[in-house]
Amino acid sequence: MAVGTELVSRNGYNATGLDAVLKGAGVPKGSFYHYFSSKEDFGLALIDQYAHDYDHKLHRLLGNPGVSPLDRIRSYLDAERTHLQQEQFLGGCLIGNLGQELSDQNERFRQRLSEVFWSWKTQFEACLREAQSLGQVFEGHDPGELAEFLLLGWEGAVLRAKVTRTAEPLDVFIRTFFRSVLKA
Amino acid sequence: MAVGTELVSRNGYNATGLDAVLKGAGVPKGSFYHYFSSKEDFGLALIDQYAHDYDHKLHRLLGNPGVSPLDRIRSYLDAERTHLQQEQFLGGCLIGNLGQELSDQNERFRQRLSEVFWSWKTQFEACLREAQSLGQVFEGHDPGELAEFLLLGWEGAVLRAKVTRTAEPLDVFIRTFFRSVLKA
Repeated sequence: MAVGTELVSRNGYNATGLDAVLKGAGVPKGSFYHYFSSKEDFGLALIDQYAHDYDHKLHRLLGNPGVSPLDRIRSYLDAERTHLQQEQFLGGCLIGNLGQELSDQNERFRQRLSEVFWSWKTQFEACLREAQSLGQVFEGHDPGELAEFLLLGWEGAVLRAKVTRTAEPLDVFIRTFFRSVLKA
Repeated sequence: MAVGTELVSRNGYNATGLDAVLKGAGVPKGSFYHYFSSKEDFGLALIDQYAHDYDHKLHRLLGNPGVSPLDRIRSYLDAERTHLQQEQFLGGCLIGNLGQELSDQNERFRQRLSEVFWSWKTQFEACLREAQSLGQVFEGHDPGELAEFLLLGWEGAVLRAKVTRTAEPLDVFIRTFFRSVLKA
């Protein structure tokens, strides 16, 4: 699965051939069709695996009671920034990439990707609501809308970082979000 | 060119065959190779055409002296929202899509797309600087960073609208941006 995730993140779903995935993973074709009935099933399984790991990571970072809610969000963004820089801004976010590539082409993918975004949003929303109850976020904001704004802006920043091949868009996003949106 | 732009916006660059473009446009292959030496040259020409048209549109909307600078930005976002809704949120932004798909694969595309983003940014930056000089934007913001934040957030919102197939992410972005970032 790791080989598939990396190839699809970098090259896209359509441009990634099953042969390359199987060769990279050292898996014979027969074994593949024992687990998956098609490339589409394999692609959806990649999304499920990525979403499962990501939910776990978000839960650990955003649910940490030892850290203030805004610091949890900041530590999530900083950790992602470090990871993207290590990868030289290649690949980016599998969910964002597939959303861009496949939403117009494949309804099963579009619906599954929409669910993943929704699950992320609810975790950020809970964290932002907690921050608001502590007086760290302006009362005028709806925590759900602010979580949506944060996630769509971050997806846009990750995309820009792919294009500029620098951390600058990520830094601008983090600075501006905290300066202007929150009472931090 | 219009057929190419539509096919590439919806299906991506790699998944769009030249044959489909030529058939859609009613152009014989020989004529194509009179103008373009390769699919890559054609793709870059699509970007140039799109960027040229877009610069013209931005200049008209953002440089309109009869309207306050913030209202110019709002009217740009509203016009884009209307356009995306008419297209049922299919396609999205050619420049954002190709940035996502090709930045890791093709250095000529990546550099050209980066230049296009830069050109857009400078136009929004000038408009935001004007708004700041009129006291409509918090003094603490750097107009260049705010323009970058606006554009990367908007690209993220357009991507989310493709995935949800609704205007909701666009509306959340517009509301939250104006409420929290500007003194409007």
